[in-house]
Amino acid sequence: MKKVYIFLAEGFETIEALAPVDVLRRGGIDVVTVSITDSETVASSHKVLVKADTTFAKANLSDGDAIILPGGFPGYANLGKSAEVGQTIKNYYNSGKLVAAICGAPTVLKINEIGEGKLITCHSSVVADMVNYNYTGTATATDGNLITADGAGHSIVFGCEILRYLTNDETVTSVRGKMELK
Amino acid sequence: MKKVYIFLAEGFETIEALAPVDVLRRGGIDVVTVSITDSETVASSHKVLVKADTTFAKANLSDGDAIILPGGFPGYANLGKSAEVGQTIKNYYNSGKLVAAICGAPTVLKINEIGEGKLITCHSSVVADMVNYNYTGTATATDGNLITADGAGHSIVFGCEILRYLTNDETVTSVRGKMELK
Repeated sequence: MKKVYIFLAEGFETIEALAPVDVLRRGGIDVVTVSITDSETVASSHKVLVKADTTFAKANLSDGDAIILPGGFPGYANLGKSAEVGQTIKNYYNSGKLVAAICGAPTVLKINEIGEGKLITCHSSVVADMVNYNYTGTATATDGNLITADGAGHSIVFGCEILRYLTNDETVTSVRGKMELK
Repeated sequence: MKKVYIFLAEGFETIEALAPVDVLRRGGIDVVTVSITDSETVASSHKVLVKADTTFAKANLSDGDAIILPGGFPGYANLGKSAEVGQTIKNYYNSGKLVAAICGAPTVLKINEIGEGKLITCHSSVVADMVNYNYTGTATATDGNLITADGAGHSIVFGCEILRYLTNDETVTSVRGKMELK
């Protein structure tokens, strides 16, 4: 079974984090939510309190196949400030594992010089920060082991693209059908 | 400010509950998440632990403008089993307040004989239960003070239709834009 870690910082965007969790668990992926704060309970940018499965300090992150970075403010800024998060996603990316980021979170890639030159998308408010990348302006973009998406409205399709990368088209079609997406 | 209560039963569908919370809070609605269990912390059908704002026993629910019923299994079945939930949504509906239900949760309307004869939609797996309603087969359906939606994949549009009902088209367009939905 493929394993995915998703990092929750204080102020993460609720749907951007939890739609991929939902979609991936529906698709049979082992998803672990990881608080990057000292507490397992993290508040989203719209004040939903979520108890994560573990914390960054406690987790052994070496066995994952992918890391997901949700956006939301100040969630993505908090991810960008963490040197430990930066080092972990660099290790994943450089060893060919999937790194996925949505909304403002592609800026965390930029801060850590991950995947420069690649096709990416991001929230319209942070496009100017993404110098050295090829911005597509699409809802999602996949280039090698990098998947990006533009905003909360495309959280489910972001989750589906991650699921497609980790499994296959058939699994995505099945999961979409059960969510009434034809 | 309009006020909305959303009921979280054990096994609620993560996105179906939290996408409307997100969309409505973005649109300036006072949204209160209400656990219908004895505990404020409720587990979704895909094992996300959410700490609700209050519990059904503690909350004074009389001041709301709308109640939202998420689907998810066994979440919607647990909502349907609660006589107190049934009485509360009956009171809301009969006094002209909005009742909104998604996925399997329209069956809670049926159990409580709310809005029979109205246009509704629901998850394809529960259509046969919705006798005495006019099933549309669309992603969302609005008929008077009843809004329904078919499944998790349409959670954001469900939230947007509730927001439209409580505010106006301009607010929905603004919220959709910030979520990168054109």
